[in-house]
Amino acid sequence: MALIVQKFGGSSVADAERIFRVAKIITDTYQAGNQVCVVLSAQGDTTDDLIEKAQEINPDASRREMDMLLACGEQMSIALMAMAIEKLGFPVVSLCGWQVGMNTDTNHSGARIKKVECDRVRDELDQKRIVLVAGFQGVDRHGDVTTLGRGGSDTTAVALAVALGADLCQIYTDVDGVYTCDPRVVPEAHKLDEITYDEMLELASMGAQVLHNRSVELAKSYNVRLEVLSSFTGNPGTIVKEAAKKVEKTYITGIAQDKKIARFALVGLEDVPGVAYKLFSVLAKGKINVDMIIQSLGRDEQKDIIFTVADKDVMDCAKLLDANKDTLNFDHMDINTGVAKVSIVGAGMLENVGIAAKMFEALYQQHINIHMISTSEVKISVLIDKDDSDRAVRVLHNQFFQ
Amino acid sequence: MALIVQKFGGSSVADAERIFRVAKIITDTYQAGNQVCVVLSAQGDTTDDLIEKAQEINPDASRREMDMLLACGEQMSIALMAMAIEKLGFPVVSLCGWQVGMNTDTNHSGARIKKVECDRVRDELDQKRIVLVAGFQGVDRHGDVTTLGRGGSDTTAVALAVALGADLCQIYTDVDGVYTCDPRVVPEAHKLDEITYDEMLELASMGAQVLHNRSVELAKSYNVRLEVLSSFTGNPGTIVKEAAKKVEKTYITGIAQDKKIARFALVGLEDVPGVAYKLFSVLAKGKINVDMIIQSLGRDEQKDIIFTVADKDVMDCAKLLDANKDTLNFDHMDINTGVAKVSIVGAGMLENVGIAAKMFEALYQQHINIHMISTSEVKISVLIDKDDSDRAVRVLHNQFFQ
Repeated sequence: MALIVQKFGGSSVADAERIFRVAKIITDTYQAGNQVCVVLSAQGDTTDDLIEKAQEINPDASRREMDMLLACGEQMSIALMAMAIEKLGFPVVSLCGWQVGMNTDTNHSGARIKKVECDRVRDELDQKRIVLVAGFQGVDRHGDVTTLGRGGSDTTAVALAVALGADLCQIYTDVDGVYTCDPRVVPEAHKLDEITYDEMLELASMGAQVLHNRSVELAKSYNVRLEVLSSFTGNPGTIVKEAAKKVEKTYITGIAQDKKIARFALVGLEDVPGVAYKLFSVLAKGKINVDMIIQSLGRDEQKDIIFTVADKDVMDCAKLLDANKDTLNFDHMDINTGVAKVSIVGAGMLENVGIAAKMFEALYQQHINIHMISTSEVKISVLIDKDDSDRAVRVLHNQFFQ
Repeated sequence: MALIVQKFGGSSVADAERIFRVAKIITDTYQAGNQVCVVLSAQGDTTDDLIEKAQEINPDASRREMDMLLACGEQMSIALMAMAIEKLGFPVVSLCGWQVGMNTDTNHSGARIKKVECDRVRDELDQKRIVLVAGFQGVDRHGDVTTLGRGGSDTTAVALAVALGADLCQIYTDVDGVYTCDPRVVPEAHKLDEITYDEMLELASMGAQVLHNRSVELAKSYNVRLEVLSSFTGNPGTIVKEAAKKVEKTYITGIAQDKKIARFALVGLEDVPGVAYKLFSVLAKGKINVDMIIQSLGRDEQKDIIFTVADKDVMDCAKLLDANKDTLNFDHMDINTGVAKVSIVGAGMLENVGIAAKMFEALYQQHINIHMISTSEVKISVLIDKDDSDRAVRVLHNQFFQ
């Protein structure tokens, strides 16, 4: 008997028919003799619909009340799924974040999990019930409802897997697993049987929407065996774990793009120590995540700092910079939302010189201009025009996988 | 400075425009220097929509999971109202049943409040915040979400008023107050300035949908001053309290009808002691509320028992009786859903002989046949054909109020 945590995304539970398909997967796992704890997202467009309702009333609503509102999406999901599983004749119970002791910090709309108590979940599993847990939500020390931010249900699932000591954490999505590239952009992309946490991390943060970044980090920290698979096909998925079984022939695992980013350029900053520190602590206090950063060489006692943020943070970031213009002391600010980030990811990258050159060469041959470059141990990212992005992904897939 | 509990029903918060109208009422009360605790129902048809979603998946869903689902309706309401009040620039916080310590028993879908802790509400009021509480819901000793049944938000409001020692509990509805009769049926009906708890109780239980029965009982037990008023007109409403200020000229306070009932007749029961006891304990165990009861005189060692239940309980009641046919030992069962109950209510009724006669006379003159009669200290009810019901209400209003 194994303890399995399963997570199903919003599209997997979008309507009654899909709910029953997922209920079948869950009860099959249960009937095979496993203990099953399931994390669900809100149905289909529920979260977007709720956000729209809130916008109509108050576009500047507090994050606390947004969390209160959005948490309903997952609560409705688990209740409806419980009813479907009851209909199939299996014992089941649904639980919200506060009921499973999903304790988070007080950072509404982007809370981080501090501790999962999960006594209640254990009790229910011991009583042979299938346990459904509302993803994406938690409760802070004041007893207020928090949410973990978009994609937080993956994190809920991995956190539960850690707390319960689960044997496997299955993340069901609408794709078969992790691909070398987005199959909608590159039809030749193929599914990977295995991938390491680090590779997955880079792919996730690069905009491959399969798994939420924080969930992979958490899985890596606690060595939780993850499986990414489809709730539609029933095919085996991709296993995410410490070291892949065999060394892949190619050094590149996957290619990803992220079109939902924007580039900020702060021009004419003073070329003195502490400028970058001041800038990025202002942004950190404003809870704005910065991704790529470039600082130009100083010239005429001035320098420029260029960085990228997620689309959703553009307005907040611009306001914040404006409000701090005097302290930061820059000449002007330039915002470019017409950019995309394209990345190649692979654990073997460091050991193979020339990967970067091969990447830049391919882009050059297609006359794709590179605005920024950023590298890590397992990935190389370039910032290019959004219009070039799909083409870049295709040419890179050709370069590395053909 | 007074502490005021206000309750707004689903139609008062049905859309953004209405939400802002209610937000204005709330913030006006707050600005007048009062502490304000507000109970909200789910928006408009939300509860019905959720029930429909559940029906599609599993018409026999457990009550526990139904409660989990339905509780979302009120949670969405309070979050959206909080956003509207934030927009108006006032400090506000929304709280669910489990957050305010609305402790109930474990009877899902019809839970009774056992204790209201409300430390959190007090804290928030002390911090000068407007407090919004999700009506209709609570939490049981297992930490599960419960609901109080339809109309339960009134009960939530009165229970909070009791626990907080509020000076006034205002129940906002879509009517101006308590009327002598349903103005949609009898245009001449007029609004009452005051009414006693007992009169209100009878009116509520008789199907006048203004106030939920249990909330009035609770208000009576703890002597909570209630006001029923409209969120649309801003007119003064009807005060419900122990003794009305002036003795009304008429002995009748109001006339009510309830069309959502059905009559059960159990024919050919044994004429031995304990038959009624057995029957009604079976129904009580099945959580079926019985209203009017008639037992025929024994004849040929047999008797009949006739009683009424709410429409929603007809199927459950019929199944339950069928399942216990052998124990109860009756010949056959007759169910009539084409009936309605019409009642006249008034505190002075007992002291004035002839009220009943006057009622029956008026019905007789209209050839309206009476199937059952039931009386209490403050009301006389008759069961008649549903088709006669509106006509009966009109003729009785004429008889007692013209």
